[in-house]
Amino acid sequence: MAKQIEIINGPNLNLTGRREQDIYGSTTFDQYLDKLRRRYPEVHIGFYQSNVEGELINRIQAVGFSADGIILNAGGYSHTSVAIHDALKAVTCPAVEVHISNIFAREDYRHHSLITPACRGIIAGFGLEGYALALEALLQD
Amino acid sequence: MAKQIEIINGPNLNLTGRREQDIYGSTTFDQYLDKLRRRYPEVHIGFYQSNVEGELINRIQAVGFSADGIILNAGGYSHTSVAIHDALKAVTCPAVEVHISNIFAREDYRHHSLITPACRGIIAGFGLEGYALALEALLQD
Amino acid sequence: MAKQIEIINGPNLNLTGRREQDIYGSTTFDQYLDKLRRRYPEVHIGFYQSNVEGELINRIQAVGFSADGIILNAGGYSHTSVAIHDALKAVTCPAVEVHISNIFAREDYRHHSLITPACRGIIAGFGLEGYALALEALLQD
Amino acid sequence: MAKQIEIINGPNLNLTGRREQDIYGSTTFDQYLDKLRRRYPEVHIGFYQSNVEGELINRIQAVGFSADGIILNAGGYSHTSVAIHDALKAVTCPAVEVHISNIFAREDYRHHSLITPACRGIIAGFGLEGYALALEALLQD
Amino acid sequence: MAKQIEIINGPNLNLTGRREQDIYGSTTFDQYLDKLRRRYPEVHIGFYQSNVEGELINRIQAVGFSADGIILNAGGYSHTSVAIHDALKAVTCPAVEVHISNIFAREDYRHHSLITPACRGIIAGFGLEGYALALEALLQD
Amino acid sequence: MAKQIEIINGPNLNLTGRREQDIYGSTTFDQYLDKLRRRYPEVHIGFYQSNVEGELINRIQAVGFSADGIILNAGGYSHTSVAIHDALKAVTCPAVEVHISNIFAREDYRHHSLITPACRGIIAGFGLEGYALALEALLQD
Amino acid sequence: MAKQIEIINGPNLNLTGRREQDIYGSTTFDQYLDKLRRRYPEVHIGFYQSNVEGELINRIQAVGFSADGIILNAGGYSHTSVAIHDALKAVTCPAVEVHISNIFAREDYRHHSLITPACRGIIAGFGLEGYALALEALLQD
Amino acid sequence: MAKQIEIINGPNLNLTGRREQDIYGSTTFDQYLDKLRRRYPEVHIGFYQSNVEGELINRIQAVGFSADGIILNAGGYSHTSVAIHDALKAVTCPAVEVHISNIFAREDYRHHSLITPACRGIIAGFGLEGYALALEALLQD
Amino acid sequence: MAKQIEIINGPNLNLTGRREQDIYGSTTFDQYLDKLRRRYPEVHIGFYQSNVEGELINRIQAVGFSADGIILNAGGYSHTSVAIHDALKAVTCPAVEVHISNIFAREDYRHHSLITPACRGIIAGFGLEGYALALEALLQD
Amino acid sequence: MAKQIEIINGPNLNLTGRREQDIYGSTTFDQYLDKLRRRYPEVHIGFYQSNVEGELINRIQAVGFSADGIILNAGGYSHTSVAIHDALKAVTCPAVEVHISNIFAREDYRHHSLITPACRGIIAGFGLEGYALALEALLQD
Amino acid sequence: MAKQIEIINGPNLNLTGRREQDIYGSTTFDQYLDKLRRRYPEVHIGFYQSNVEGELINRIQAVGFSADGIILNAGGYSHTSVAIHDALKAVTCPAVEVHISNIFAREDYRHHSLITPACRGIIAGFGLEGYALALEALLQD
Amino acid sequence: MAKQIEIINGPNLNLTGRREQDIYGSTTFDQYLDKLRRRYPEVHIGFYQSNVEGELINRIQAVGFSADGIILNAGGYSHTSVAIHDALKAVTCPAVEVHISNIFAREDYRHHSLITPACRGIIAGFGLEGYALALEALLQD
Repeated sequence: MAKQIEIINGPNLNLTGRREQDIYGSTTFDQYLDKLRRRYPEVHIGFYQSNVEGELINRIQAVGFSADGIILNAGGYSHTSVAIHDALKAVTCPAVEVHISNIFAREDYRHHSLITPACRGIIAGFGLEGYALALEALLQD
Repeated sequence: MAKQIEIINGPNLNLTGRREQDIYGSTTFDQYLDKLRRRYPEVHIGFYQSNVEGELINRIQAVGFSADGIILNAGGYSHTSVAIHDALKAVTCPAVEVHISNIFAREDYRHHSLITPACRGIIAGFGLEGYALALEALLQD
Repeated sequence: MAKQIEIINGPNLNLTGRREQDIYGSTTFDQYLDKLRRRYPEVHIGFYQSNVEGELINRIQAVGFSADGIILNAGGYSHTSVAIHDALKAVTCPAVEVHISNIFAREDYRHHSLITPACRGIIAGFGLEGYALALEALLQD
Repeated sequence: MAKQIEIINGPNLNLTGRREQDIYGSTTFDQYLDKLRRRYPEVHIGFYQSNVEGELINRIQAVGFSADGIILNAGGYSHTSVAIHDALKAVTCPAVEVHISNIFAREDYRHHSLITPACRGIIAGFGLEGYALALEALLQD
Repeated sequence: MAKQIEIINGPNLNLTGRREQDIYGSTTFDQYLDKLRRRYPEVHIGFYQSNVEGELINRIQAVGFSADGIILNAGGYSHTSVAIHDALKAVTCPAVEVHISNIFAREDYRHHSLITPACRGIIAGFGLEGYALALEALLQD
Repeated sequence: MAKQIEIINGPNLNLTGRREQDIYGSTTFDQYLDKLRRRYPEVHIGFYQSNVEGELINRIQAVGFSADGIILNAGGYSHTSVAIHDALKAVTCPAVEVHISNIFAREDYRHHSLITPACRGIIAGFGLEGYALALEALLQD
Repeated sequence: MAKQIEIINGPNLNLTGRREQDIYGSTTFDQYLDKLRRRYPEVHIGFYQSNVEGELINRIQAVGFSADGIILNAGGYSHTSVAIHDALKAVTCPAVEVHISNIFAREDYRHHSLITPACRGIIAGFGLEGYALALEALLQD
Repeated sequence: MAKQIEIINGPNLNLTGRREQDIYGSTTFDQYLDKLRRRYPEVHIGFYQSNVEGELINRIQAVGFSADGIILNAGGYSHTSVAIHDALKAVTCPAVEVHISNIFAREDYRHHSLITPACRGIIAGFGLEGYALALEALLQD
Repeated sequence: MAKQIEIINGPNLNLTGRREQDIYGSTTFDQYLDKLRRRYPEVHIGFYQSNVEGELINRIQAVGFSADGIILNAGGYSHTSVAIHDALKAVTCPAVEVHISNIFAREDYRHHSLITPACRGIIAGFGLEGYALALEALLQD
Repeated sequence: MAKQIEIINGPNLNLTGRREQDIYGSTTFDQYLDKLRRRYPEVHIGFYQSNVEGELINRIQAVGFSADGIILNAGGYSHTSVAIHDALKAVTCPAVEVHISNIFAREDYRHHSLITPACRGIIAGFGLEGYALALEALLQD
Repeated sequence: MAKQIEIINGPNLNLTGRREQDIYGSTTFDQYLDKLRRRYPEVHIGFYQSNVEGELINRIQAVGFSADGIILNAGGYSHTSVAIHDALKAVTCPAVEVHISNIFAREDYRHHSLITPACRGIIAGFGLEGYALALEALLQD
Repeated sequence: MAKQIEIINGPNLNLTGRREQDIYGSTTFDQYLDKLRRRYPEVHIGFYQSNVEGELINRIQAVGFSADGIILNAGGYSHTSVAIHDALKAVTCPAVEVHISNIFAREDYRHHSLITPACRGIIAGFGLEGYALALEALLQD
């Protein structure tokens, strides 16, 4: 049966391709998602983006009991959200944390993610390709 | 005249009874609320839950000038939300902070609640019964 | 069979009703204890107060293997005593930590209690009524 | 051509004039906004308020590529929001941070704003008049 | 009666226009002061600069009981001087802290000003125009 | 009427004159007390020493509502005792903190006294003569 | 002449064998002391236990000028007692600090002992046998 | 032309499959390397392991100017080695940091890697498959 | 021969009696000095005040090799001046640190004096009378 | 069967007897080892010393699956080596940490050993005799 | 053309040779300067000393645009002066920081110099000869 | 007799001239050493480089009892190595710490060297010429 993988993007990731291109590149997420779905036709790749912390939690709760995996880039909430951590702990499917940039080579307050301990693992610094790597990681199961 | 007490639950508390049962128990909040209302028929017990920090603030503002008391379990936002603290300070009715688990016996980042100084007091570690204790505390006035 | 609940009060709580009344109120603990015993005639409520840290430990050891619960207000020792923490861990009955004032809204060094992780939970900020709430909490078992 | 300046107010600022009047004064924001628009008839002054962090980000994204400037009072989110910082960095128009009170003379956790480094500057402590000063600052360009 | 506003500039501000121009701009303070006095002919604008911390205190004491306001840019002393803080507290006229650059977007040790809590407010990041904004703020009284 | 001043000495001060003489000198406290009483014949100088923290609190409570002043050298408890702080706050007579050695020139953990904020003031570094200075300070009232 | 070694046990060590057996084992201290005295018939092994910090200090003072060595397990006071540290410094015989469990592998607040710098050395993690090792260490002199 | 990718493993990774299997799994690295080489026949996969920090630096220097990429799992040195960080900065080929376990969900001192800022990115928590993901990441160039 | 004692007052102490009277009282220092000189006619009491840190150092150097003692109230420089500490260490006469208010009961940044370790001792919290106590302390030699 | 105990000494311990004799004594380790082997003829005492962190790890791996116990003095690496900690965790025989001096009475950076949590226990401060005590501890098993 | 090098000495360095001779030696700075000028007859060596922080800044500004280099020993101000740092950044000639003693082997608060990042480099621990080394360093240009 | 000075270079310094040339310059160390030996023909200049911490210790031990001085650039180990500190303390000849770049103007973790307190002094920021300055410093003895 086809696997169901849910990509959940947090704040400002809807501006990817348009914002701070030296850090985040010039491809929009939609373009990338298209490419990703074509590369993995056998996987159902859900997608959701919100700038609202609580809506990310709503989404995690909505898909996290039935999907085969969550790929989460919580953006700026990664560094401050105990609530998203708790949501990931509350649901049953595994999650992988992705960051487009190498957050550990940026400002100090980006070096710590409250979300990682609630995920299986983290992939950071590989641009949008990090999503594909996360998908690969989840498909190994 | 009947007292009006408002219970406000924060992120992931809608999953109570379903999530990490060794920490949060197996009763759902709806079941508990039913029991609570039956136990205190003379009290109007309002209820609101949201995963969105700002909607909790909306609710505090909406009820906080007219209710006789707020029972607030802000979940993961307890540890990070200056804004909820400010909302509680802004309204006129007293609030009691409740936590189902003993947050002081868990991870370090759960030991500090930004919300407590804006509340009359805190009750933590008694499972769902903490809500009844909070109700008792508010009814003393 | 009647339950045996032991109240143990730490340093300076013998001055309650007399000391810093804006923080601790004007009822003496003896007056309150009387009222409490009349309200819960079916419970045997033991009481002990000492200003000496080690005597509080002696008391915890003396009652902690046979009582049904301990209500402990360790006063100023709450913030510094590893030894009381260890005593609570060593005995078998559950303990509830009580504080008359909302310690989390006072000086920084009162925000942290070394004792809470060894207790079932904490109740703080409700004046002397916190003892009744603690009693309720222990009677649920 | 008339300049377009967007005022964005964060959590609890909808209660200005009603809440903690010794800190925030007794004028409501609507009254002040009226006065401000009359004082600067040549400026289009947009206005938006939300208690929801993510909706503030939505608004910053919506106006931040076309307006001539943003005046942002992020309230309690100022001290905790990496995500709003990121939104300001992502858009192209300049922003000025405003606080009604002198946050540096209040509680410790209000002394640090994560948002300031993403703004041109900060104006704090001048009551509602801080918005007019911010407007002046943006009109200099 | 004309208002008396005293500008007091601390260390290295005598080099403004000559030093690190990418941070501080290329206008000298004398040029700016001229312009400012012409813009506000109805205000008596006093001016004093010294590189010596104690002389800044002398000046604050000399003018701080009779002037209508002080505009203080204490430069590098802002981050370390308890003594200037005390001087501002000791005198009776209000003070406004100004910084040419956005100190909160620079080195860590510039993020904290010991002087702000003794001032009405702070204005930082708007270049020399910050002095005009401070003047406006003081004239509102 | 003769003033009643109570000297209260904490742990290990009973060994003064015998212990670490380079730090504490070679006069015993009894010898010093004799001299002090002869020097101030018009003052009733009470004296109490204990190595037990709680007994120091007992003593503070016993004399602190009737004496004209307490001279307290809490020794090693100075740096750790919230409970003695609370006792001093609870009683009504003023207290002066004395240390024989200059605690601020010794190990780091001796630099902070939890007791000072509950005292009128502190005198440290003048050997046993610090007690006489404290007496002088209390007699000024 | 027979050596005189004094064992001094602090809070809760009277419950050894009964309390948290996975950490402290199931032998009572009395049983162990018997065995130890039989193993070292040529040594006079004194023993004292108290839960009261100040009584431990009394004991250290009482034996510390005449015994050949002190074996001290100050239990929970190890991490907080400047006063016991001072007592050990004040007396003339050497002391060895013993802990039954490996305190460095437990909670953070057990990683630091204020007492060690006043002792010749520390032995931790070897169960009750740590007392025999400490005895050996003291007999080498 | 075939790409040259160098895997460099640090201390104790030679025991993978044998050590703490609940954390590191039961496959030996040799077994995994075999599989990896078979999966990527078109890539030359070099391999080196050492427990000596300086030899890891030697290896980075030896391959880092000619290889197409380094996959580095520096084990325990990740958290303490400025010198390996410097070596990665000194060479010209990109590096990817890999950890078998999710280091951010383990002890505090494993949460910070000094090496990440000198790498393109980090992959942690996916078991040995993390090496394949890193390979994929490097092959994208 | 008459003793020579030098009082050196730091920043803002020239405003004593005029500034923040709830903290510093309403007597001017000149009035107090007069009284002090009359009380101790046998002592030559020198006096110097400056708001300039370096001039305080000049004064310490000028009198510190010949006077019998220095009474130093360095005001706000107490908390930040390594240079005054060094000056006190460099000269040969003893110094006593005085503070009018109980600095340990005020803001956090006033709890630490860099100067105390270079003084014989500290007297704080006794108003202007602290200078007389310091004089007494120096006359004991 | 004879027990096999492996002593592993870290950096600079090859200079014992020659280096800083007031701290480490004047016996060389070879002399001590001889004496130790003669005292315990029934034990096979292996010995290894290296100044290279990784070689200590190699040795721990080489002997740690077959020996009956390791006595490890990792010298300066004790305070910084996560990798040695990991090696001890990886092998199966118990280890005892030994330090010749009382590291807790020396510089701050020697107060914390990363290695202790991976050992059964620690013995510090008894000179070379600490190795004999460690041997005794391991022979108890 | 002859090079112009300016030596600027901060607080208490005028007492060199007279003060704490075990740390600073017994040669006065004048004697040393004589010798230095004779050793480097081809260099114009300016010299300035002040105990006043602001006068050091005045001097840096006065010579820092025309000299070929500044040798700065800011004494106790090194550890606290953002303002001197700013002055060095503001001028155009290079500066070398010198300390007579090895400040990194002394008290903790001497381990950090705010001035070093604004200098080309630092030379510390070589007594007065450090000035000659600094001169050499500046003459290389 | 000719002096024997030993230069010891730590990790990655073998790449000097090749690596990060904006920080470390383009001269190789061999080229510089040649020049240095020609400039100081009367000095025997030994040289050793290793990337292995323990081999640096071996070298310090090998030369540190007979050489007239060590010039040590421990590279990245400077910031983390207690063991190298101990080696320098253990040997008898003086050592001078050298850094090519101004480490105090770089990343935070480079601001602290554990090695400096064991050296006579430090020279940092003067490129390779720092070695010549160190040589000069050692030749003064």
